[in-house]
Amino acid sequence: MLPHLLKRKVNTKKNMKKNFKERLSDVKAFVFDVDGVFTDGTLTLLPGGEQARTMNIRDGFAIKYAVEQGYPIAIITGGDDEPVRWRFNRLGVKHVYLPSSDKVTDLKSFIEKENINPEDVLYMGDDLPDWEVMQMVGVPTCPCDADSEIQKISYYTSDKKGGEGCVRDVIEQVLRAQHNWLTQK
Amino acid sequence: MLPHLLKRKVNTKKNMKKNFKERLSDVKAFVFDVDGVFTDGTLTLLPGGEQARTMNIRDGFAIKYAVEQGYPIAIITGGDDEPVRWRFNRLGVKHVYLPSSDKVTDLKSFIEKENINPEDVLYMGDDLPDWEVMQMVGVPTCPCDADSEIQKISYYTSDKKGGEGCVRDVIEQVLRAQHNWLTQK
Amino acid sequence: MLPHLLKRKVNTKKNMKKNFKERLSDVKAFVFDVDGVFTDGTLTLLPGGEQARTMNIRDGFAIKYAVEQGYPIAIITGGDDEPVRWRFNRLGVKHVYLPSSDKVTDLKSFIEKENINPEDVLYMGDDLPDWEVMQMVGVPTCPCDADSEIQKISYYTSDKKGGEGCVRDVIEQVLRAQHNWLTQK
Amino acid sequence: MLPHLLKRKVNTKKNMKKNFKERLSDVKAFVFDVDGVFTDGTLTLLPGGEQARTMNIRDGFAIKYAVEQGYPIAIITGGDDEPVRWRFNRLGVKHVYLPSSDKVTDLKSFIEKENINPEDVLYMGDDLPDWEVMQMVGVPTCPCDADSEIQKISYYTSDKKGGEGCVRDVIEQVLRAQHNWLTQK
Repeated sequence: MLPHLLKRKVNTKKNMKKNFKERLSDVKAFVFDVDGVFTDGTLTLLPGGEQARTMNIRDGFAIKYAVEQGYPIAIITGGDDEPVRWRFNRLGVKHVYLPSSDKVTDLKSFIEKENINPEDVLYMGDDLPDWEVMQMVGVPTCPCDADSEIQKISYYTSDKKGGEGCVRDVIEQVLRAQHNWLTQK
Repeated sequence: MLPHLLKRKVNTKKNMKKNFKERLSDVKAFVFDVDGVFTDGTLTLLPGGEQARTMNIRDGFAIKYAVEQGYPIAIITGGDDEPVRWRFNRLGVKHVYLPSSDKVTDLKSFIEKENINPEDVLYMGDDLPDWEVMQMVGVPTCPCDADSEIQKISYYTSDKKGGEGCVRDVIEQVLRAQHNWLTQK
Repeated sequence: MLPHLLKRKVNTKKNMKKNFKERLSDVKAFVFDVDGVFTDGTLTLLPGGEQARTMNIRDGFAIKYAVEQGYPIAIITGGDDEPVRWRFNRLGVKHVYLPSSDKVTDLKSFIEKENINPEDVLYMGDDLPDWEVMQMVGVPTCPCDADSEIQKISYYTSDKKGGEGCVRDVIEQVLRAQHNWLTQK
Repeated sequence: MLPHLLKRKVNTKKNMKKNFKERLSDVKAFVFDVDGVFTDGTLTLLPGGEQARTMNIRDGFAIKYAVEQGYPIAIITGGDDEPVRWRFNRLGVKHVYLPSSDKVTDLKSFIEKENINPEDVLYMGDDLPDWEVMQMVGVPTCPCDADSEIQKISYYTSDKKGGEGCVRDVIEQVLRAQHNWLTQK
């Protein structure tokens, strides 16, 4: 199915000039990396070999609200930290690929299960492990402190850093464009 | 009682031009949200599904001092983290609504128990879950990194961010205006 | 003994114009508050009611080095967190007043035990609980993000914030002025 | 063997004008300090006397990738925190000197085991405990918030702070200069 997706990508290229604001009304689903997107890219090393990650409440509010509005959401992360799964399950996210050993395969699994066109997916990633998968979706985005090569392939760079509200930023923009944001109801 | 409160709100509107500095001398009680006000909006995910929140000592000093001076204080938070309750109990706060499933109801409970006029309450919140309740009090305020719609309905935006002293800022200003601050005694 | 100390303070006033750089060569001992000085003023609330504080390695390096050079050092903190005591004991600090219920009494205990003139003590504090005790020593100092009233009574405000090296800054300056810093040997 | 190394250092001095960009193609191995390089220099004090350190995922990605490309890497730290060892072992680093009581001896051990010329080693350190050992390698580097004396002896100061990607910065620059970076393949 990868060639099929890449073919879609070719089609996407034709639309590249369609700007981000216009694309917002097309977005039907969201996919997010975790480290550097929901977090500032740091990992706290705890005694016993365990880890802690720090996330933003406002990003969580946006995820939960988008789930309630019916948007399919997937989390795809190379990380291997069960508390991250619990956090997203609690926010209502059904598709948590953790640990993901192949982001491309996991994206395909998500779009098949939800029967979505990759053109209609907004993806936010911050670093090279997201590079390939970001080029397969219609709306690749990143936080403002993403790796430079990720910024190059993004259609939109948030004015927020990872962990400081970049997820809320893109969700709020999409839902506002589609008149689904909380304060528009 | 909500319509009654909303009616008060209408009355409040008449006074909207009375500026924040003048209002400070009217404040008789404080209500605070937690995440994004006492914290920078982050949540640390610990092994075992537990959470940690990080607060500012100077905000804590101000809360404790205001309690000692006799100001009624309430904490109303959607969060569900017992260490937060312990922290505020240790600082002397009697009214800790945690987890609050309905901030409006909890505000009403507080003002009834303490027999206060909502006009005389200063509330500080940072995000949309505070939006409705903030419009029911006389002095809605927020940290400088609050959501834009919260900033719009606030009579005062602190120059401090959440977790960086915004609570201390508003308590110190009110107590100074009323000649009750520590260094004025 | 407080009046005696206050009398010393009166003597100090005569020397107030002697600038900070000149005073550095007189410093014979150091006293530090903890929260907002060794830390950025935050406290992490852990499950079980425990707390975590975050300190700077370079401040620790300076403390350890000053102890090795023979400078008496005291830590006086209102906090009540045993890991803080362990940290300072490990760095070689013998005088750790924790929790201190009266900073003035603890300062007097320290200068008596070490037989030092309060004129020769450099104190660094950041907030109102340090206000009285700071006025009893020869060289009151603070981090750049200290409370405004603490800044007013300080002879020197570091260009570093609490937790970002303000302790290292004052120790390094004193030891350099006295030709005792590591890279001068 | 120290005099031998110092002799190399004398030779190095002759090449000091060779700029950093040119030197990048010579680097065959990496040595890193931990605190202030992989971290922002802070240490979190946990109940029970344990410690937590916070590291950056993108630095970890670069370490793992450089190990996979066959570059010898050593970690030399005065710290004494087993989770740090586990983190680096997981990233594939074989040489973890922790706790190091003598960084010079540990550097010599590493270059002997890997049979490398110290001229070809890039070292990144941030504070005075790195001062001596940094002068024994061909390419001493530091984060932008390093101690001023460390900056003086560095051939390159990253535009990133400790904990904010300075390790990724130097690894990526070296691997790009040698056409070994991920996106060049």
